[in-house]
Amino acid sequence: MINKLIEQLAVTTDSKIVLLVIDGLSGIPNKSGKTELDTANIPNLDALARDSICGITDPIAPGITPGSGPAHLSLFGYDPLEHKIGRGLLEALGIDFPLESGDLAVRGNLAAMDKNGKISDRRAGRISTEESIKICSRLEGIEISGIKIFVKPVKEHRVVVIFRGKGLDDALSETDPQVEGLAPLPVKPLGPLAAETAGIITKFIEEVKKRLSKSFSANMILLRGFAKSQKLSSFHERYKLRAAAIAIYPMYRGLARLFGMEILPAGERINDEFDCLRQNFDKYDFFYIHVKYTDSAGEDGNFEKKVSILEEVDSYIPNLLELKPAVLIVTGDHSTPAVLKGHSWHPVPIILHGRYTGKDDVVQFSEKECAKGGIGRISAMQVMTLAMANALKLTKYGA
Amino acid sequence: MINKLIEQLAVTTDSKIVLLVIDGLSGIPNKSGKTELDTANIPNLDALARDSICGITDPIAPGITPGSGPAHLSLFGYDPLEHKIGRGLLEALGIDFPLESGDLAVRGNLAAMDKNGKISDRRAGRISTEESIKICSRLEGIEISGIKIFVKPVKEHRVVVIFRGKGLDDALSETDPQVEGLAPLPVKPLGPLAAETAGIITKFIEEVKKRLSKSFSANMILLRGFAKSQKLSSFHERYKLRAAAIAIYPMYRGLARLFGMEILPAGERINDEFDCLRQNFDKYDFFYIHVKYTDSAGEDGNFEKKVSILEEVDSYIPNLLELKPAVLIVTGDHSTPAVLKGHSWHPVPIILHGRYTGKDDVVQFSEKECAKGGIGRISAMQVMTLAMANALKLTKYGA
Repeated sequence: MINKLIEQLAVTTDSKIVLLVIDGLSGIPNKSGKTELDTANIPNLDALARDSICGITDPIAPGITPGSGPAHLSLFGYDPLEHKIGRGLLEALGIDFPLESGDLAVRGNLAAMDKNGKISDRRAGRISTEESIKICSRLEGIEISGIKIFVKPVKEHRVVVIFRGKGLDDALSETDPQVEGLAPLPVKPLGPLAAETAGIITKFIEEVKKRLSKSFSANMILLRGFAKSQKLSSFHERYKLRAAAIAIYPMYRGLARLFGMEILPAGERINDEFDCLRQNFDKYDFFYIHVKYTDSAGEDGNFEKKVSILEEVDSYIPNLLELKPAVLIVTGDHSTPAVLKGHSWHPVPIILHGRYTGKDDVVQFSEKECAKGGIGRISAMQVMTLAMANALKLTKYGA
Repeated sequence: MINKLIEQLAVTTDSKIVLLVIDGLSGIPNKSGKTELDTANIPNLDALARDSICGITDPIAPGITPGSGPAHLSLFGYDPLEHKIGRGLLEALGIDFPLESGDLAVRGNLAAMDKNGKISDRRAGRISTEESIKICSRLEGIEISGIKIFVKPVKEHRVVVIFRGKGLDDALSETDPQVEGLAPLPVKPLGPLAAETAGIITKFIEEVKKRLSKSFSANMILLRGFAKSQKLSSFHERYKLRAAAIAIYPMYRGLARLFGMEILPAGERINDEFDCLRQNFDKYDFFYIHVKYTDSAGEDGNFEKKVSILEEVDSYIPNLLELKPAVLIVTGDHSTPAVLKGHSWHPVPIILHGRYTGKDDVVQFSEKECAKGGIGRISAMQVMTLAMANALKLTKYGA
């Protein structure tokens, strides 16, 4: 309901919003008693926090640990319990595959099957990506009952399969038996609308076996994580924003594309991303910049690495501020404490910087300080509304 | 929706959660300018607050004063506006009556009626519980139109009546005129489905009058608080927890039983409850411990008594911590300020203690300090999610 309201109230203006997402930003104290943010020497972010209003956000709800998909949905202002982006879709997004509404995507393993039809190697000897590219090229152009099928290499034995056409449904059982020595499982419909799709996928697997029978490295495909893409209203429809995304990792570019954002060339390093922002700053009125490596370091349990990446990001803040965005938001999509070596449920600190935000008494950009901030504890779904309001892009509700 | 999600994400692990509910915990300042918590000498709880993350919770919503039923529903993670446990049910639970789904329960007063059919004593001279037991035995075995009726003594003149059978409805007016000198009110249906039930209850009252006509102490029953029991998913279904309850007062045992908790022998004093926890600590992975007397003292307007009970509870904290629960929550179900001599709408302080909670700057366990805590202000309905997350019993949502 609030989303319809925002769509009604949103207006296009020249003011610019920058949403800097430091993936897995926040953490919990390690043995030193400090978190990564506490430990990092981040004078620019600290100064920004002092000159802004701060708070903490829940990506989904207190206590819920989100994956990257739902966490980003929420941060973009879309209900992550209503809109789901399943595994297969994320994999397709991750290789920059141009998904269309209604596409069904699924993760695949190129696998080896013995003479008796049992899986002898679920990863076909973890074949090289090069080899996988060759195998996928043999699987080009398959079409079954009007459904077009794309098999695309991801990395090593991992591929993604996209089914395009009318009437597809993702209520399907997976074919990967998860252990070797067993036959692949048949695809079964798990809902009343999926029977036809199950039939198409069964025929597709037969066709794959036929085409790969002479391949010595892989002669089978195992499928898991069926997911159909839903229609999401774009950033332009929802917020009337000309939105652009800067992300080194393909999956985040793919996510941004789902919301109709323009994908800008992010380069390969964090400073490339900030350069890209500067070069394109005149052309859009919303920028989503995604920094991945904090999350990767957290996932690896590498506290020091995460600290150093936070310090690197901090060094780009002065240049970013020189661009004078009307609103700058610095936050994360979720927490990834090095202590836990994975995503976590902890709320995420946020800095909301702009001329009209008001101020609080936060003196440092940290989990603990932001929890005392003027924004309080809000849902991540409310961040975009605050950004829009502070950029004077939302008109009044009611008389 | 979030509840379905939690059901999907919950996993069973060996980690243990203790939820210590100090009934009516919080208050407002009296003339001294201090609340009961401010006044109490509770060094162990203060130390625990410093070594934890704190916050405040709203049992229902800001400004809403809850009864014990809705307050506990919320704290257990069930929406108190969706699931209602009416007075009659609470009374039945309070005497350990084994309620079944669909039962209709109502509170009764054994009363005295004069020759003209007017109530001469609403409490029949506050007859002894012994006498009430005898009277109730005269009312055994009543069955009307296939509905079985149980009349059970509670305390003194107070009884509870349970109606069991098909098609019962609790949209019924009460029969207690609340003042003496008036005739009992007739039971009227307040909704389209209650007409038949109203007829059965009218016949039941006639039968009671007939059976008690020769009793000198009580010859009438007054009914109020009709409530029908609904099906609630158990703690095992919702959280995959093996849950146990330790509560001296029967009503809280009854509440816990509604959620499928095992009821442990709580004894009669607060230290018995903590002994019981210690003795059973290996056998379950969730413990709800309920301390009643803080609420009773608050209800009596006895500020000093409430302070001293808080101090007594405080003295058991070190032993509790020796058990090393993965997560310890110390909170109340609602506020009962001695100043107001009753439940109130004020938010309730909470301590969330565990290895992964993170820390804040709270230095004392009090209303004012906890309001500045790292948890912020959340709904009591979110407490169990936080407990589960911090005990590492919730998996990730989405990829």
